[in-house]
Amino acid sequence: MKLTSISELGEFKLIEHLTKNIEIQNTSTIMGIGDDAAILNFRGKNTVISTDLLIEGIHFDMSYVPLKHLGYKAIAVNISDIYAMNAIPTQVTVSIAVSNRFPVEALDEFYDGIKVACKNHKVDFVGGDTSSSKTGFIISVTALGIAENDKVVKRSTAQVDDIVCVTGDLGGAYVGLQLLEREKEIYKTSPNLQPELTGNEYILQRQLRPEPRKDIIEAFAELEIIPTAMMDISDGLSSELMHICNQSGVGCRIYEEKIPIAKETIKQSQEFNIDPTVCAMNGGEDYELVFTISVSDYEKIKNNWDFTAIGYITKDTGVTQLIARDGTAIPIEAQGWNTFK
Amino acid sequence: MKLTSISELGEFKLIEHLTKNIEIQNTSTIMGIGDDAAILNFRGKNTVISTDLLIEGIHFDMSYVPLKHLGYKAIAVNISDIYAMNAIPTQVTVSIAVSNRFPVEALDEFYDGIKVACKNHKVDFVGGDTSSSKTGFIISVTALGIAENDKVVKRSTAQVDDIVCVTGDLGGAYVGLQLLEREKEIYKTSPNLQPELTGNEYILQRQLRPEPRKDIIEAFAELEIIPTAMMDISDGLSSELMHICNQSGVGCRIYEEKIPIAKETIKQSQEFNIDPTVCAMNGGEDYELVFTISVSDYEKIKNNWDFTAIGYITKDTGVTQLIARDGTAIPIEAQGWNTFK
Repeated sequence: MKLTSISELGEFKLIEHLTKNIEIQNTSTIMGIGDDAAILNFRGKNTVISTDLLIEGIHFDMSYVPLKHLGYKAIAVNISDIYAMNAIPTQVTVSIAVSNRFPVEALDEFYDGIKVACKNHKVDFVGGDTSSSKTGFIISVTALGIAENDKVVKRSTAQVDDIVCVTGDLGGAYVGLQLLEREKEIYKTSPNLQPELTGNEYILQRQLRPEPRKDIIEAFAELEIIPTAMMDISDGLSSELMHICNQSGVGCRIYEEKIPIAKETIKQSQEFNIDPTVCAMNGGEDYELVFTISVSDYEKIKNNWDFTAIGYITKDTGVTQLIARDGTAIPIEAQGWNTFK
Repeated sequence: MKLTSISELGEFKLIEHLTKNIEIQNTSTIMGIGDDAAILNFRGKNTVISTDLLIEGIHFDMSYVPLKHLGYKAIAVNISDIYAMNAIPTQVTVSIAVSNRFPVEALDEFYDGIKVACKNHKVDFVGGDTSSSKTGFIISVTALGIAENDKVVKRSTAQVDDIVCVTGDLGGAYVGLQLLEREKEIYKTSPNLQPELTGNEYILQRQLRPEPRKDIIEAFAELEIIPTAMMDISDGLSSELMHICNQSGVGCRIYEEKIPIAKETIKQSQEFNIDPTVCAMNGGEDYELVFTISVSDYEKIKNNWDFTAIGYITKDTGVTQLIARDGTAIPIEAQGWNTFK
């Protein structure tokens, strides 16, 4: 198959090629791609905006990340921030910089992933920028969303005695990454060995194609629940809990035994000799939600399998504790996502 | 002076450091930096959104671009797209990726430039992302703006017989870039020679610190003029005229002798043996506005020094012509900004 070089097309034809057949799904999008700016109208509702950079060699490794998944994930991680505000994502802009040796067909794969994510989450792709890069693949996504004015949920409004809940399970994305890194190293020394990925589909999918929790925001609306504070888990539960507690001027006690971890995550983390709790607390990239909720609202969701209560908010400003299985209180320290180290 | 390394601070403290003292100036900004997303409310008005990537080695050269100017320009080029919609910019997000060898003091310079641009244009800095980069400095800016619903100006609505106008003068930014490139080459071979920049302040400023035309959008509002089509001149006049004509289904005739070029630009382009008209048509980065206007509205601005009528719109779809000084009609071809070549 003959591959098409980007320089054959040039910037304008490339944009035309990559953005053809893009359908508008939201009434808030008045005009999408094709002018100096897109035109939107939020009809008086609150708009939320969030942005992320994804850089080859820092955030992803092209040697094992399929481009379609990369496109999906680029959108997923951004709209996850929108859901974390209890808002519904409506538009994204996507800018990329790639080497001119990158074939157009590879970019098509990437944009296919973007389009699938946009379709699944009813988000309109309304603009962007394309550039060449002398070094690696660079992706910048900005996501917009809307929320009823009294329903936006911040980090800074957790209340003493609120229940701390998380959605889904944690640590899988981190263990999935360790597995991909291990198989890459093995491949480098023994390229003829087949990678051992079978049976690990769950953790690989957690790493490669995370699914932001649209369903949770819809459930909140249906159950008429507004969390008191919320964040998505991108840097790791420890880091997010510290943000919520510090910004709300409260503390928290979290119980190790309550933290939801999938059996596949436990199995693989044991194989790597890492404590599964460490993966869940500090791993990051799970794109689940952590939120605080009043005791009375918690009654409405306590039998729902999507949610796990893991602890509660205390009045001790800045004192964030993990209560281990043996009863010891361990201070929670944010590992965060310090790409500068 | 001891410089501070970024890794000393870590991501969260770095963000805190870079974004302290940021003041909110627009009522449409409900909450800025500090959560998963910023919260905005446009109160039913049209919102426009535009985004740009700026990459070291492609869009700028750190060996001669002062960081403060780079910060200013990163904002300027984005809000120029907002003005080009006849809208008023209101918010920006700024994401950066830098090497961890970059000192915090250098980033401070860059953010100072951003803050000055935001202040000059009454724009709120509401979010972003920071990451490390293994290669070069990467900047991604997204700008939002508002416009009355019936005042947004697109590219695709130029009308036959409209006058084509440009603001300011063209070609200066391109000649400024050539000068900086020449002095860089001289410096490489003879580092003790002083660069010859004196007397060329105008074209250097056009390249290093362009000023987007807020004043023009304010003048339109005051004079109650709405152009029929408009773009900002980032890729070069040729390219922008082709976009307007193709998307509007019209043609144009532009007169070489009418194209406004500053005397400093003419002088320096002659020194480089480049035709000043070529600089104006294909140079790009001037961040002036090109617009079309009905003959009756043109009457209101024809004595204003900020505007120059350079030609008119014809019914010949896709036929874009430059009428040279000798009367020859030359087809306008877009050079664009093909960074892929």
